[in-house]
Amino acid sequence: MASEFESARGSDDPGVGIVQTQFRELFAPPHQLTLDSGEKFGPITVAYETYGELTPKKDNAIFVCHALTGDAHVAGKHSPDDKKFGWWDPLVGPGRALDTTKYFVICANVLGGCQGTTGPISINPVTGRPYGLTFPFITVGDMVTVHRELCLSLGIERVLSVIGGSLGGMQVLEWAARFPASIRSAMCLAAAANLTAQGIAFNAVGRRAIYADPNFHNGDYYSPDGPKKYGEEGPRFGLALARMLAHITYLSELSIEKKFGRRLQHSDQLAYELLRETEFQIESYLHYQGERFIERFDANSYLYLTRAMDYFDLAARYGSLEQALGRTDARFLVTSYNTDWLFPSAQSREIVTALVKANRHVTYLELQSVFGHDSFLIEVDQLAELAVPFLRETYRHG
Amino acid sequence: MASEFESARGSDDPGVGIVQTQFRELFAPPHQLTLDSGEKFGPITVAYETYGELTPKKDNAIFVCHALTGDAHVAGKHSPDDKKFGWWDPLVGPGRALDTTKYFVICANVLGGCQGTTGPISINPVTGRPYGLTFPFITVGDMVTVHRELCLSLGIERVLSVIGGSLGGMQVLEWAARFPASIRSAMCLAAAANLTAQGIAFNAVGRRAIYADPNFHNGDYYSPDGPKKYGEEGPRFGLALARMLAHITYLSELSIEKKFGRRLQHSDQLAYELLRETEFQIESYLHYQGERFIERFDANSYLYLTRAMDYFDLAARYGSLEQALGRTDARFLVTSYNTDWLFPSAQSREIVTALVKANRHVTYLELQSVFGHDSFLIEVDQLAELAVPFLRETYRHG
Repeated sequence: MASEFESARGSDDPGVGIVQTQFRELFAPPHQLTLDSGEKFGPITVAYETYGELTPKKDNAIFVCHALTGDAHVAGKHSPDDKKFGWWDPLVGPGRALDTTKYFVICANVLGGCQGTTGPISINPVTGRPYGLTFPFITVGDMVTVHRELCLSLGIERVLSVIGGSLGGMQVLEWAARFPASIRSAMCLAAAANLTAQGIAFNAVGRRAIYADPNFHNGDYYSPDGPKKYGEEGPRFGLALARMLAHITYLSELSIEKKFGRRLQHSDQLAYELLRETEFQIESYLHYQGERFIERFDANSYLYLTRAMDYFDLAARYGSLEQALGRTDARFLVTSYNTDWLFPSAQSREIVTALVKANRHVTYLELQSVFGHDSFLIEVDQLAELAVPFLRETYRHG
Repeated sequence: MASEFESARGSDDPGVGIVQTQFRELFAPPHQLTLDSGEKFGPITVAYETYGELTPKKDNAIFVCHALTGDAHVAGKHSPDDKKFGWWDPLVGPGRALDTTKYFVICANVLGGCQGTTGPISINPVTGRPYGLTFPFITVGDMVTVHRELCLSLGIERVLSVIGGSLGGMQVLEWAARFPASIRSAMCLAAAANLTAQGIAFNAVGRRAIYADPNFHNGDYYSPDGPKKYGEEGPRFGLALARMLAHITYLSELSIEKKFGRRLQHSDQLAYELLRETEFQIESYLHYQGERFIERFDANSYLYLTRAMDYFDLAARYGSLEQALGRTDARFLVTSYNTDWLFPSAQSREIVTALVKANRHVTYLELQSVFGHDSFLIEVDQLAELAVPFLRETYRHG
């Protein structure tokens, strides 16, 4: 997602301050996780962060599910010198929508990710080498099972709320269906109960760029002494291209037009040269996004996580969407964004319709924003207006 | 564009029958073409086809401008064994909308193309080797100048109409501005006076796939003894990927959802295997489109022609859209398609508004179709309903 929009609330508000990523080992043999594929897998190291304090009754936990390329670092900084705040910093902190003076906020890097939780870049303890493509096939359900296990290991049987956008929203929906008694509420943003065929198509093209990169080496591109800094090895071009493409789908046509239009990057005059591939500002921007991305993300993780998105299909798994979401009595808040064409509002309306048919409590709004799919990361104030009373009511009825 | 929709009107209607591509050499030194870049270029061989008979007054010519990956072969077959008809066969023939018993229809492969007209795959007479990336930078205006020269060489000073969709529609608009007295009418379908920033972005990603392909060799990938059959050499993966991506943008979300949805290609069961990249039908379809495309198209041409689309900006060139289109007194028919998100209707409305402001005759309809940008190739009947009376009226007032 477009991390240039990351910002804190202002320099006079320290937010959650300095935070540290924590690690926990789960599913160690012989208690391995049985994946949706049937394969057994473990141990799994989970990287997570927490903000705020858990009450003695352990009834104030909010679990944040991150999107495709996110991580556990939702809020604050890792050191005073950190240039960047966590990816949803404006939403999480004292007095913010996920108020850390009231709530205990948890976020974990997903299974298969590359930001600390076990994924293809992790060392397979059996071989002493990174998993690469020997990493097992994972699903959104598998990610959620790991999240749930992390909560249990922290002593939390039931979370006050689970919240996420995009792939994070898919995790929210899956959580409601898979562990229906373990959540009191769910906030599902810019998401869907399945990816559209168009979404699968874009993912397929992105993955093909990675596969076709001569430095892919069938996923075995890590240094002999273990994974180096991202971007120095592996399918750099393929991964950057996949990101450039995905980035287009995260923005609305209107936002691209407003932000870049047909403006040139370096001159007022067209160059009439074929190979000037960053002549238009939009080209330069996408190249920059691609280059930045390969510094922080692993190509194999990108393959596994996008495929998990493709596979996600709540209705297919549970018989129908109504049956899937009717399993829980959690209260729902659903938002979509009018310019989001990757996860269009029609898909959120399907979720809402299923919840209504199942006689569940659900609030839905299509929020107005120019930012397309990325809106859930950017339009924090609109979201806060809904989330604050929603959480308060849920907590009160606990 | 999606050529699986190619079809004739029915086996009892022979259409234009067997046709042959013809060739004409234009702009031979010292009469070289001065390109928009300022460079001089020639000779230029033009591949073209004609259908019907030119009247002695030479007043019944209709020039068809093809889209990005089209060619001069609009209608009929090249031999009785040909499996496929020309790309707009249902529109062109005796009794069809472009009625070859009344009109003389011409179509030429564009400058920079790879279907007979001089392009990067052609032999540079100076070096005896294919141009590759030494081919000059070309614009939509340069393409139109070559078309216009072809008409003059056929003795046609003024065409009854010029028609085209997508990049073909851009040529139509450019023709009206550049050679305003040379056309009596113009039919501009699914086009725009400039490409959106989003369109530039998709083109940039497609080109980058070609550049990054290790078989690209900076465009010099042809065999020593000249270009072989497409698809046997050069950046196969890159070009296929560019096509797969472009193909997504030619279809509407609705048409992908209807045609493929989330259906699997080979099984009812998900495989839970990462490397099954054609598991979903939409993936299989896109792979097939990519593979077919590299058999018939040159990667260098793809680079040049997409860049020409990016550069096209009628308002920037002529001061304003009103000034550009007000130069001609030709009658206009403009159509857009409600599910076309690559060339959205708003862009056609800009064209129409400019024509109205310039007090020009213009008819505009947003046609309804599920097929997205490809609609102009598919919805021939809707188009015919408008084109037939439009052409008849234009001809009568000639």
